[in-house]
Amino acid sequence: MKLVIINGPNLNLLGKREPEIYGHIDFETFFKTLALAHPTINFEYYQSNVEGELINALHQWGFSANGILLNAGGFTHTSIALADAVAAVKTPVVEVHLSNIFARENFRHTSYIGAHCVGSISGFGLQSYALAVSYFTNMA
Amino acid sequence: MKLVIINGPNLNLLGKREPEIYGHIDFETFFKTLALAHPTINFEYYQSNVEGELINALHQWGFSANGILLNAGGFTHTSIALADAVAAVKTPVVEVHLSNIFARENFRHTSYIGAHCVGSISGFGLQSYALAVSYFTNMA
Amino acid sequence: MKLVIINGPNLNLLGKREPEIYGHIDFETFFKTLALAHPTINFEYYQSNVEGELINALHQWGFSANGILLNAGGFTHTSIALADAVAAVKTPVVEVHLSNIFARENFRHTSYIGAHCVGSISGFGLQSYALAVSYFTNMA
Amino acid sequence: MKLVIINGPNLNLLGKREPEIYGHIDFETFFKTLALAHPTINFEYYQSNVEGELINALHQWGFSANGILLNAGGFTHTSIALADAVAAVKTPVVEVHLSNIFARENFRHTSYIGAHCVGSISGFGLQSYALAVSYFTNMA
Amino acid sequence: MKLVIINGPNLNLLGKREPEIYGHIDFETFFKTLALAHPTINFEYYQSNVEGELINALHQWGFSANGILLNAGGFTHTSIALADAVAAVKTPVVEVHLSNIFARENFRHTSYIGAHCVGSISGFGLQSYALAVSYFTNMA
Amino acid sequence: MKLVIINGPNLNLLGKREPEIYGHIDFETFFKTLALAHPTINFEYYQSNVEGELINALHQWGFSANGILLNAGGFTHTSIALADAVAAVKTPVVEVHLSNIFARENFRHTSYIGAHCVGSISGFGLQSYALAVSYFTNMA
Amino acid sequence: MKLVIINGPNLNLLGKREPEIYGHIDFETFFKTLALAHPTINFEYYQSNVEGELINALHQWGFSANGILLNAGGFTHTSIALADAVAAVKTPVVEVHLSNIFARENFRHTSYIGAHCVGSISGFGLQSYALAVSYFTNMA
Amino acid sequence: MKLVIINGPNLNLLGKREPEIYGHIDFETFFKTLALAHPTINFEYYQSNVEGELINALHQWGFSANGILLNAGGFTHTSIALADAVAAVKTPVVEVHLSNIFARENFRHTSYIGAHCVGSISGFGLQSYALAVSYFTNMA
Amino acid sequence: MKLVIINGPNLNLLGKREPEIYGHIDFETFFKTLALAHPTINFEYYQSNVEGELINALHQWGFSANGILLNAGGFTHTSIALADAVAAVKTPVVEVHLSNIFARENFRHTSYIGAHCVGSISGFGLQSYALAVSYFTNMA
Amino acid sequence: MKLVIINGPNLNLLGKREPEIYGHIDFETFFKTLALAHPTINFEYYQSNVEGELINALHQWGFSANGILLNAGGFTHTSIALADAVAAVKTPVVEVHLSNIFARENFRHTSYIGAHCVGSISGFGLQSYALAVSYFTNMA
Amino acid sequence: MKLVIINGPNLNLLGKREPEIYGHIDFETFFKTLALAHPTINFEYYQSNVEGELINALHQWGFSANGILLNAGGFTHTSIALADAVAAVKTPVVEVHLSNIFARENFRHTSYIGAHCVGSISGFGLQSYALAVSYFTNMA
Amino acid sequence: MKLVIINGPNLNLLGKREPEIYGHIDFETFFKTLALAHPTINFEYYQSNVEGELINALHQWGFSANGILLNAGGFTHTSIALADAVAAVKTPVVEVHLSNIFARENFRHTSYIGAHCVGSISGFGLQSYALAVSYFTNMA
Repeated sequence: MKLVIINGPNLNLLGKREPEIYGHIDFETFFKTLALAHPTINFEYYQSNVEGELINALHQWGFSANGILLNAGGFTHTSIALADAVAAVKTPVVEVHLSNIFARENFRHTSYIGAHCVGSISGFGLQSYALAVSYFTNMA
Repeated sequence: MKLVIINGPNLNLLGKREPEIYGHIDFETFFKTLALAHPTINFEYYQSNVEGELINALHQWGFSANGILLNAGGFTHTSIALADAVAAVKTPVVEVHLSNIFARENFRHTSYIGAHCVGSISGFGLQSYALAVSYFTNMA
Repeated sequence: MKLVIINGPNLNLLGKREPEIYGHIDFETFFKTLALAHPTINFEYYQSNVEGELINALHQWGFSANGILLNAGGFTHTSIALADAVAAVKTPVVEVHLSNIFARENFRHTSYIGAHCVGSISGFGLQSYALAVSYFTNMA
Repeated sequence: MKLVIINGPNLNLLGKREPEIYGHIDFETFFKTLALAHPTINFEYYQSNVEGELINALHQWGFSANGILLNAGGFTHTSIALADAVAAVKTPVVEVHLSNIFARENFRHTSYIGAHCVGSISGFGLQSYALAVSYFTNMA
Repeated sequence: MKLVIINGPNLNLLGKREPEIYGHIDFETFFKTLALAHPTINFEYYQSNVEGELINALHQWGFSANGILLNAGGFTHTSIALADAVAAVKTPVVEVHLSNIFARENFRHTSYIGAHCVGSISGFGLQSYALAVSYFTNMA
Repeated sequence: MKLVIINGPNLNLLGKREPEIYGHIDFETFFKTLALAHPTINFEYYQSNVEGELINALHQWGFSANGILLNAGGFTHTSIALADAVAAVKTPVVEVHLSNIFARENFRHTSYIGAHCVGSISGFGLQSYALAVSYFTNMA
Repeated sequence: MKLVIINGPNLNLLGKREPEIYGHIDFETFFKTLALAHPTINFEYYQSNVEGELINALHQWGFSANGILLNAGGFTHTSIALADAVAAVKTPVVEVHLSNIFARENFRHTSYIGAHCVGSISGFGLQSYALAVSYFTNMA
Repeated sequence: MKLVIINGPNLNLLGKREPEIYGHIDFETFFKTLALAHPTINFEYYQSNVEGELINALHQWGFSANGILLNAGGFTHTSIALADAVAAVKTPVVEVHLSNIFARENFRHTSYIGAHCVGSISGFGLQSYALAVSYFTNMA
Repeated sequence: MKLVIINGPNLNLLGKREPEIYGHIDFETFFKTLALAHPTINFEYYQSNVEGELINALHQWGFSANGILLNAGGFTHTSIALADAVAAVKTPVVEVHLSNIFARENFRHTSYIGAHCVGSISGFGLQSYALAVSYFTNMA
Repeated sequence: MKLVIINGPNLNLLGKREPEIYGHIDFETFFKTLALAHPTINFEYYQSNVEGELINALHQWGFSANGILLNAGGFTHTSIALADAVAAVKTPVVEVHLSNIFARENFRHTSYIGAHCVGSISGFGLQSYALAVSYFTNMA
Repeated sequence: MKLVIINGPNLNLLGKREPEIYGHIDFETFFKTLALAHPTINFEYYQSNVEGELINALHQWGFSANGILLNAGGFTHTSIALADAVAAVKTPVVEVHLSNIFARENFRHTSYIGAHCVGSISGFGLQSYALAVSYFTNMA
Repeated sequence: MKLVIINGPNLNLLGKREPEIYGHIDFETFFKTLALAHPTINFEYYQSNVEGELINALHQWGFSANGILLNAGGFTHTSIALADAVAAVKTPVVEVHLSNIFARENFRHTSYIGAHCVGSISGFGLQSYALAVSYFTNMA
């Protein structure tokens, strides 16, 4: 089984940005731990701050992978183009957020992307990704 | 560890209501399977169609249980009183939905309750509950 | 044929509340007259001020009765949970109002419930119920 | 007793337009059946696609007839002028709709006309007219 | 000097409709008085309940008359087409209303037509017309 | 003189919930002090988390008591049904809030209930109730 | 007969401000011409840029003068306090504007003041005042 | 092949209205040129300023012609009734505008009609019609 | 103890304005009665129709008095500057209204000022002031 | 004559994405057919999912080409930056859409880009491009 | 060169109001430092809490000074009359704010005044004034 | 001291785009002049039309430079992701605009980015950058 994690804008700063809030661990380190815990899964990881490159990534893996975990960051609430890409591909996509979007500013309560995802997991920090993997592996 | 599942309005119809969409399994049956899969957890299950009884349930378990899984159904989008109850209790609450609320009608895109929950899991059907349990058990 | 009349909040005050507007007749008296006028119909009458008990009533009769007349009062405009219940049951439901909701305050111009009812009859006072019965009996 | 049925835009297509939805019967045929069923009533029928002609019709019969059944079609949601006409005449007017306006697009959830009608009956197809007649005849 | 008065929907009912509010005088009678008081002005009067016929009237006189007094009634607030006609003609148009539109319902506080008129006079009953004539005659 | 205090959702947690904010005193204790301070008043106290039971309480005392103090908690901002009940009863009702609703979230700035109350007192903590009693006793 | 003209903010700049648009005549000059043309009227003129002083002026003359012409300028669209003053006095007030407010920015399409005035005259430049005087003198 | 061009309000003024903007050619002249350029097409042309007559025209040709070009002018943004007529007929309808509606006032950015048309062509002046004909002839 | 009552626009008309609604007593008379009833309190009374003078008054007493009762009248709903002044001073301010603002027009349901006041008392007529004094004296 | 076609996000999936809806032909194939049909035109084709690269493309050809066909996909409704680019270049730009944007979700009814284009063609599938070419070649 | 600084409501409290946030320096002291640093500039300073007096100040200096620095405080977001005054005068006006208005409450994100100013500088505390002076002196 | 200027979409067209409005000077030329005027500052300049590349640039310099001048162009009003990046970095960021955003279209009156910047300077053309440099050098 192949699962692809696609991270959007500012997530490359994890571990560096406000560590007292987001923790000291960067995403690459977490990613290795996650891969080790699921040796039978073929993981792919991609991050970009460019809206269009995220669309390209969805196009690239969206017809072959078994599942995509998408944390679109700030694009979640504004990008119709990214939402169109989620709708266009065949691989099921799970929306993931570190924080609970309903506990933040009003402009984060909208999600264009969510409308086309299988489901959404938000608020559990890095564990949000692990839970999404559980969905795909039916291990939960 | 004690976990309480609190289900809101119309979830007692599961298995009976539009089974071609929601499946033929009722919640009690699923609950037994879930409990069997986690023998070390002390599960409690409560359902009511009455908003105030859900508030009562949050008050009853919200100072002693280790975690609460709350599927508030239609009250998610309208009940400030229920959201106040989630804010008032000490036990961490995870918001759970069978369906993806962003893929439904506009009036379901709002969540008063979400603002006070640890996190939210929606769109995975009954597996949404299993993923929430994973969060509490750190099994994910 | 079995028809169930379900009345929501404050309708138990009929005859007592502002009688110069709503008249001096209470609902129970009207109900007896209605039942006498249709001797072949098996009528059931239920009233509650509790939203969840109205949902319970819809669940109880919504898979066996031939028709339901629902006057949800103030819940008409606010209750997604009650609207979900109307959508979930199999018995056809007719929305009934004593007054014409479009001639009242703006916040009464919305109806969550109406979206899932067969039809709606409002503004004819107690005769609104009689007209709804006519629909079910095809007597009209 | 004289009752006037006034139909607005596109209702002349009944029976011809999407018959699998609206049925194969045109309004004239239904009208004859209705008149036959109420031999003591003096019925009048008028249809126009022109907003101002509907206003003219309300003016013509609105000071002499005993009742008017008005299905204003798409003008229901946009015509302040037509609503003013309903308010200006003395004959009581009942709003009638074939379909349940709350189960359709958002822009159909508004009714300027309803604010000045005695009551409203919608969602019962052609039977909506029959129920309105029942109101006037007190047969219900 | 030629002045044309164009009256929109329901104004033909003046004197007949709610006379305790609008007075017992019909527009034709008022019109004769007005014409007598200004013997040097060539007056024309036109009334229609049909939006398109009002547009036609604006087209007919809007390139030759010296001034137009337009009371568009309920179309004031809804008709972009009528406003386009006012913008298209060359004769200056004065907006006239019997009642003060800001003292009525919210939906009457908008005026598409006003944006293209020279000015607006509202709230003075039939005297609103006389004041508009004063504007054109510079008698004021 | 008979005065009834009706408390809505989550107010049963007073003294237990976030005591550093709301204080360590529970409502029952406060109620006893209040009663002692007004020995000539016949006080009644009722609390429920169930919207419909609050409506029932208003019906029960709303035709006989001399005054009602209503703290509807989160229902203040969402319940048209409760507001209808306040409008329907004859006893004057005073709206009471512990906190100042205009200093809190936007969705608490609306009050359906306030429209039908004699007056409103908010922001003075438990003293809000004492001030409302002063109104009824004219002691202020 | 005593008529008072009350001018609001920025109208003291007339003749000085953008004369190519508003003309080279200042208000005082116009006022003298107006007074000369109506020798039997006792005119009073007041201007202020201070909202509260305009309220004071309404209080001062609003119980004795026969009519008030109020051009509230920019306060027209924002001042509830000024509108309350118009509502509180007994003298009839006519709203006057130099320009047509519906042909300007959106935020000028609202009028709090208009709701309490007898009528409104806008768009005719200084002649708007003359027309308002005509209303009071019945000369029109 | 039979194609019908239906023009709405104010388009009869073409060539006469603001010719420096809209050009000196009237629609009839353009229509002749268009017909000459497509000798094998049976063209029909209809214009009216009356909303209901445009609905009539859609009914008349909407079940027999091969294509309809509809420029509804100002009705585009306000007429639900006209949009219903487009939805009711069987002939494919193409929406045509002389000007680009998104470059004009905000209230022209809405189109009720567009939702039921095959497609929309706007902003190319009279050439918009020619492009729509190209669509029907597949000549493009 | 020093308490200052600050009254905003139009409150100087009390007793004179619509006495059948607001009563025949003017504020000065009421003020004397209030002072007599609390001989140990050093009262100050200030009224102005000018927004900036009310800000000045808040600045003048807002660092020395023990309490301020502010009835900002129509400025309550529009003045951010006055709300800033309430936020800037150190003396606790209680918002007072004669009428219940939620029972009036929609534009009176907003309060910029309330967000910075200790609490709010509205709807009890002149007794609203007395209740606010009770709050400061703890007499309630 | 040089014409440039600029395609935005997700249009590279044409032929691959939901072929039962969008057809089996990809854009490159269509582009070759289009170029063959217009041998005298020098065509250029560019596609990108990156908003900024589309802006770059407009900058690159927007001062030299004779025309640009822009299908901005999902950016149509959100990108002020792209709209600024259209406004900044000198080459006339025609907005093109495969589907009719008014027949889709509400958030697609807005177009920032349209305000600066010559015209707009939408809803004709790939033929929309051909019609836009017709505009530039005056072949239509 | 003559520059005038006009400060609006509550700015007279600077140094006294929340000094831990706004600092201990009052505006007069800062003003002296600013004047000393620019000995060739003829500075004028004016502050008022009265909206109309700020308008008067703009009128007084707005036709003779070389530049005006306007910090309108809370009036920035509500005063159309003040914005009209900025538009009416000839001296260029620069909008100045101590704090960044986009980082504060939603109702501070609007600026009527900004639309008529040369430019805007906000968020730099008292240095905002110095930067505005730099603009006028071209020293920057 | 190191200062970085980051320019967003379309700013690379400066000097080329509408030179009669924006001037004939391109940004690179201005940048050289600016650098020459401040020989002790280590300037860096970066421009991109790609939203994500601007985020990358903020990440790259946002933990080491002493100040960042950000002109985000059209992304100012739509990009939550860019605003998140400003919030995430440690270097203070000043928002810069050539034009006054409040004097342009409504959709430019919002700024997501401004909420996280130190301050904002807009409307002074290229001098806006110089003023921002003054802020960082304290030269102002």
